[in-house]
Amino acid sequence: MTMLEIIRKKREGRALSGEEIAWFVRALCEGRIPDYQVSALLMAIFLRGMDGEETAALTLEMAKSGDMAELNAVPGLKVDKHSTGGVGDLTTLVALPLAAACGAKVAKMSGRALGHTGGTLDKLWSIPGFRTDLSQGEFIAQLGEIGCALIGQSAAFAPADRILYALRDVSATVESLPLIVSSILSKKIAAGADAIVLDVKTGSGALMKEFEDSVALAEEMVKIGKRAGRRMLAFVTDMDEPLGASIGNALEIREAVAILRGEEEGRAAELCLRIAAAMLALALEISEGEALLRVRAALRDGGGLAKLREWVAAQGGNPAALDDFSLLPGAAVCHEVKSLKSGFITKIDAQALGLAAGALGAARATKEAAIDYGVGMVLLRQRGDEVRAGEALAVIHAQSERAALRCEGEILAAIAIGGSRPEPRPLIFARFA
Amino acid sequence: MTMLEIIRKKREGRALSGEEIAWFVRALCEGRIPDYQVSALLMAIFLRGMDGEETAALTLEMAKSGDMAELNAVPGLKVDKHSTGGVGDLTTLVALPLAAACGAKVAKMSGRALGHTGGTLDKLWSIPGFRTDLSQGEFIAQLGEIGCALIGQSAAFAPADRILYALRDVSATVESLPLIVSSILSKKIAAGADAIVLDVKTGSGALMKEFEDSVALAEEMVKIGKRAGRRMLAFVTDMDEPLGASIGNALEIREAVAILRGEEEGRAAELCLRIAAAMLALALEISEGEALLRVRAALRDGGGLAKLREWVAAQGGNPAALDDFSLLPGAAVCHEVKSLKSGFITKIDAQALGLAAGALGAARATKEAAIDYGVGMVLLRQRGDEVRAGEALAVIHAQSERAALRCEGEILAAIAIGGSRPEPRPLIFARFA
Repeated sequence: MTMLEIIRKKREGRALSGEEIAWFVRALCEGRIPDYQVSALLMAIFLRGMDGEETAALTLEMAKSGDMAELNAVPGLKVDKHSTGGVGDLTTLVALPLAAACGAKVAKMSGRALGHTGGTLDKLWSIPGFRTDLSQGEFIAQLGEIGCALIGQSAAFAPADRILYALRDVSATVESLPLIVSSILSKKIAAGADAIVLDVKTGSGALMKEFEDSVALAEEMVKIGKRAGRRMLAFVTDMDEPLGASIGNALEIREAVAILRGEEEGRAAELCLRIAAAMLALALEISEGEALLRVRAALRDGGGLAKLREWVAAQGGNPAALDDFSLLPGAAVCHEVKSLKSGFITKIDAQALGLAAGALGAARATKEAAIDYGVGMVLLRQRGDEVRAGEALAVIHAQSERAALRCEGEILAAIAIGGSRPEPRPLIFARFA
Repeated sequence: MTMLEIIRKKREGRALSGEEIAWFVRALCEGRIPDYQVSALLMAIFLRGMDGEETAALTLEMAKSGDMAELNAVPGLKVDKHSTGGVGDLTTLVALPLAAACGAKVAKMSGRALGHTGGTLDKLWSIPGFRTDLSQGEFIAQLGEIGCALIGQSAAFAPADRILYALRDVSATVESLPLIVSSILSKKIAAGADAIVLDVKTGSGALMKEFEDSVALAEEMVKIGKRAGRRMLAFVTDMDEPLGASIGNALEIREAVAILRGEEEGRAAELCLRIAAAMLALALEISEGEALLRVRAALRDGGGLAKLREWVAAQGGNPAALDDFSLLPGAAVCHEVKSLKSGFITKIDAQALGLAAGALGAARATKEAAIDYGVGMVLLRQRGDEVRAGEALAVIHAQSERAALRCEGEILAAIAIGGSRPEPRPLIFARFA
């Protein structure tokens, strides 16, 4: 078997065999294939595609390319969730403890933030003491004890994905369905997930902006995950406006607590419940309807909040910060943004607000940069609301007046106000199982 | 402008602009584009193609990437010819002096041999003293004086092609029409050709075995060459069997002389005349019919042979070797191959004979290996001939009995003998102007 033969075969649109894919992934990890051959194959895959069998084989070979978590010591199906990334997306912070409170075994691995969207790891790190570098032993013990554990993505899992991703990034082959699917799923499978709930964001604030692309990804992920022997559920959800009211790490922790306290309803709370129910349904093999009832009960009776406290404590965080927000990182300046116009909010540009929060310090400008966990913004109004000129639209949490003023301009530009109330947009566009 | 944008554009099947192609070729030659990006673009070009405008722009930019020969000191249109490579293909050795004898200015650049086909440079080097490393000054002076000059391909011409070719070879992107066309034409244009005659070989002994591919290449070369402002004529010719009777360097020189002496007619002589006429027609801007009459006259009156002598002498070779073949390299052993069967020759496998001659030492096993100019074979029969068992089919020229015996087996395997006379195959399948 040679790499040239494999490239030629894919170039001609023929399906690669399981042996060829296994050979390629092994040789790739052993450093035996020069970059220019890998990128030629990636472009051939980008343009010729891969069928379900090939994509599933690639996914499993990539999963097997490094460590494979062994979670059998914990009884039951282990469930993970994955979001393609959005602004103000706090679902993990709420859905994980809710599902765990209802008896699901939630074994989650989180990656780094991408682009203008926040990362779950950063949000959790804003809780003093919270650590995500658990050893496998700690992870398994915690999962068995409290039913919920989260680790940062480990370099030991799916090293083939790291190599391929780095090359995709510089060879214009990122947006390929089989390559995206195998990249996401291989890491989840290596981390030990038996069941995976996917939240594919769509709209102007999502990484994947086209509706058709989001639907195709959700559908393909479910198909390939099942082919690889995993239980799968995928939603395509709205990311045309930020999901929650808060954008910023500690601010999103506060909003997650508010949702778990039952103090906040609306789109963010609704999606957290649906995601938690989907995780529970897969983990316990019950219907989503039944799961939703149990999850709602865990919200009402405080079981979800109690589980969040337990989870935070188990990973070294200070659970008191969940009750006393002054223990969370804060900002020096709170600055209210007032509307310049009267009318209806017709559009809230999630990507612009994500970038504006990043400029305050809520996200990394470079891979190594430090994050300011206390800064960000809280939106006081949402799309469809009527506002009068002079009424408050948002509150900026910044470390200086100067930073707040610049952010004010960005927020005013990101919120469009028109003469008539816009049509409501659905929260969940599609569901694939 | 960034390489990622260019890859993305081509990946989506959009045409690259002249500016983008110029930027790419420049950055490529300056070493500013990593190999993995070049190979990703090559695969995108392979699968998405390039339109005529893009291919012409790529050709001209590649031509401009290094030295450009300045042949204006020699009046008239400078004509070159190019063959895609065949076995026993001695057309250059005959057509060049014939066209030059009739007044064409023939400025030829020859590349190295490829695969199982012989190279013109190797054939000429078998004439004692013949050199092809002329300086530009020597080349121009000789062209002006005798109307005919040939140099080996210089690294100073079209360096972009060398970089791209090396990567195409290892990324499975060789067989792409726009990449083949730009590779051939860029070098010819850099070397100063105003007019180019192309001999695209087709059949089992050609590098391009499929008839449709050969026709597409001939047609595209003419289209792109014209777009780049060059006069073009292309033939698609048969390479299912060896063109001439001789395979081997000095042996092909002997056969070329025999043709110029008028001692040999048949397919090789016929093609030499047609190619010479095409070169003359382009160079003098006369009809091919008129050119063919003049070329035939130059064959009859010895003008072609006289021009060959002049040409050989001008490039340092010993012209006496053209009259006294004992001055050419020879072989220790001459071994006759006799037919084992009676019947009609239905097929002569040109590729197998090319490889067999190579095994005798007539071609390089590796890039650095030395060549034995004296060895090879002369076929005594051609396709369609009737033979009886025991009659001679070929004569092997080898340096040892052992080598000759092994070659005998290869020749017998390469010549198929059947019960009925095969349909004749045309020599010239198509012509594009």
